[in-house]
Amino acid sequence: MGTPVAATVTFEDGTSRCVDDVAQALALGDVARVELLYEYGPDLVPRGPLDPIGMWRYRDLLPLDPGPIAYPLPVGGTPLIAPPGLRRASGCDGLWVKDETRGPTGSNKDRATALVLEQALRQGHETVSCASTGNVAVSLAVGAAAAGKRAVIFVPAEVDDTKLAFMLFAGATVVKVRQGYAAAFRLSREAARAFGWCDRNTGVNPLTVEAKKTVALEIWEQLGRTVPDAVVAPVGDGPTLCGLAKGFRELVACGVAERMPRLIGVQAEGCQPIKRAWEAHASRVEPVQPATIADGIAVGDPISGALALRDVRQSGGGFIAVSDAELLKAMRELAAWAGVLAEPAGAAAYAGLLRALECGLVGRQERVVILVTGTLLKTPRFARSDGRPLEIDADLGELERALAGLGTS
Amino acid sequence: MGTPVAATVTFEDGTSRCVDDVAQALALGDVARVELLYEYGPDLVPRGPLDPIGMWRYRDLLPLDPGPIAYPLPVGGTPLIAPPGLRRASGCDGLWVKDETRGPTGSNKDRATALVLEQALRQGHETVSCASTGNVAVSLAVGAAAAGKRAVIFVPAEVDDTKLAFMLFAGATVVKVRQGYAAAFRLSREAARAFGWCDRNTGVNPLTVEAKKTVALEIWEQLGRTVPDAVVAPVGDGPTLCGLAKGFRELVACGVAERMPRLIGVQAEGCQPIKRAWEAHASRVEPVQPATIADGIAVGDPISGALALRDVRQSGGGFIAVSDAELLKAMRELAAWAGVLAEPAGAAAYAGLLRALECGLVGRQERVVILVTGTLLKTPRFARSDGRPLEIDADLGELERALAGLGTS
Ligand SMILES: Cc1ncc(COP(=O)(O)O)c(C=O)c1O
Ligand SMILES: Cc1ncc(COP(=O)(O)O)c(C=O)c1O
Repeated sequence: MGTPVAATVTFEDGTSRCVDDVAQALALGDVARVELLYEYGPDLVPRGPLDPIGMWRYRDLLPLDPGPIAYPLPVGGTPLIAPPGLRRASGCDGLWVKDETRGPTGSNKDRATALVLEQALRQGHETVSCASTGNVAVSLAVGAAAAGKRAVIFVPAEVDDTKLAFMLFAGATVVKVRQGYAAAFRLSREAARAFGWCDRNTGVNPLTVEAKKTVALEIWEQLGRTVPDAVVAPVGDGPTLCGLAKGFRELVACGVAERMPRLIGVQAEGCQPIKRAWEAHASRVEPVQPATIADGIAVGDPISGALALRDVRQSGGGFIAVSDAELLKAMRELAAWAGVLAEPAGAAAYAGLLRALECGLVGRQERVVILVTGTLLKTPRFARSDGRPLEIDADLGELERALAGLGTS
Repeated sequence: MGTPVAATVTFEDGTSRCVDDVAQALALGDVARVELLYEYGPDLVPRGPLDPIGMWRYRDLLPLDPGPIAYPLPVGGTPLIAPPGLRRASGCDGLWVKDETRGPTGSNKDRATALVLEQALRQGHETVSCASTGNVAVSLAVGAAAAGKRAVIFVPAEVDDTKLAFMLFAGATVVKVRQGYAAAFRLSREAARAFGWCDRNTGVNPLTVEAKKTVALEIWEQLGRTVPDAVVAPVGDGPTLCGLAKGFRELVACGVAERMPRLIGVQAEGCQPIKRAWEAHASRVEPVQPATIADGIAVGDPISGALALRDVRQSGGGFIAVSDAELLKAMRELAAWAGVLAEPAGAAAYAGLLRALECGLVGRQERVVILVTGTLLKTPRFARSDGRPLEIDADLGELERALAGLGTS
């Protein structure tokens, strides 16, 4: 239903222009980030009660021709949670958690996978491909299996064993590239062009941002068609944040929202190229060597860095960096006070919020949404706490004494 | 809104009676399974389009007084998937997958946890407890965290380290009982009574079946308010299957459905006490020593065995046992042909369906729903396949040769 009528093209130095010919814009995918534009108006925004069809609810704002959705896995429509315990703990009464861990493979990547595969199904591509070390790869492997497509996934030789096992388990063809991630990425681009595959690479394929913007549309609807004061999100390559920005921008363009929320991008202290560029008022991002436990945001040379800087600037927000220790603490607090299980990158928004509250970037009385982007279930090695089980004989008296020893009863 | 007006009480020998005084029925929880009954009629069944509020949609059929839902985690409303690849592979064109892996902790236990905690929040219990080694424990730990309640979880000393880590990570008090699972279960019952805790033990607390029945109501609504021919589900203690049965039975009692689906219960070959009783036409289940990789259904002395036998008999269904090898194969096929990641017990329904198709218990032209009850993400050690990654240098020619070697391109 949605028909892009033009595109914005943003180059690595941050300069940007509008291109009327969408096909011509798409051809620039290797040197610029391409964002699709529609003929905005209130009719593109769904009305009426929320339904369980997830992100397809927003199909008038997605580049999809009419016709039934063929992709079999429902995606999106994730919960927006009001967590009383976490509100108390953070002192932020207007805190909401957008729980993106509920997708088929437990991360927000499942949205982009769904839209790319829906296109592949419609256009008759038999193979979809990407380069990735983590959640994108698992998401594409599983999504392609559901859609009956072949997935070819390029990974660096040092890929995590568990994630590799999931990709293979779903039947993907996995190609380890000895020269590392950057080489794997280049080869995957080259192969997709040479063999006519559908290329899911984040940042390069404009559908990934299109899909990820649906999370903003959901937040707005879930808040009763209102815009929060701020939204906090982790930033790796950038499309998660840029998708959020695009979603809110389009609500404004459609005339149903009055303003954007302030966007707060969170990076890891051990990998903060965009935060550094932000502080230096640069519009271009200098690559760094990543060193953080949060593999989802361990991106040293982010593909949508310039775009993320622009989007945060336009929104009046900012960037925050958090340490690995803060990430681990945020994971524990999300689990113990909100019942939300997040992986390190998935907890970055909460860690960033705590910093943002401290430095005044977000006020405690504001309405703020944090995006939890990936599940702890997939990375149990990070589920470490100081807690110990009590060990007793099966006796009520012994139980009572053991519990009393905890200082609770 | 829902007000139970009577209860059915079923004893271990399979005899059963109706009790008009609900409180009196509930007091029998230690020696019998108690099922709540309502004043059935079409008004108890929701109308209108599906919404995203999950299981609370069915609150008129749940024992909940009026008033807002306080439990903060949305649960239920899980996808019913039509998987083209799996339909082809199984030769079963009317196959549907009810994907219960999308809950906050990735299993169908999250429904029961939600209802028990909603009650605890309304009744002012500060502590909820259970005995469990697996998914129930993780679900209760996380759910209690979300609700701001203390969880006390009794586990046998040999509990799985990863699951234990999740419980502690969510802040639960975990009590290891040296004498094993049966002793842990008894102590948890005793402690709940002695200390006035809310007892979530499956089978004992009638809310667990009440919550689990909502999956049947959803299946019926998702199939356009029609009943499938058969539903296949794994059976450990029994409440998952008994919940399904109760849901469909109540739709008939409400006058909105004409019949029950045939229910097919699936057990593991290494732990099939209910299947054995079924074959022997017994109404009482003899305990066995479990030996299967599927910990969710490794229940040697099932608490709701007699009830499960009755429900399957009344539905005109049957029981199936599957080997561990069949479970592993079913997990691989669910992943590779449907994009659904299931743990061993979670894949039992698909393994059982394949057997049921072979032996004619389910016909290939029938409309059949399989219940996938738990996620593989939590148990990555079972994500083993024969697949191997290709390993190459970053060179298109080398890639082409490597892919050609796979017999695909
Ligand atoms: C869990 C998680 N959070 C955040 C991110 C960062 O997203 P983006 O690369 O779109 O900035 C990723 C990316 O892999 C991720 O897996
Ligand atoms: C994944 C999974 N499937 C099936 C079951 C069996 O459910 P029930 O004990 O209700 O029969 C369990 C129970 O723990 C489980 O965890």
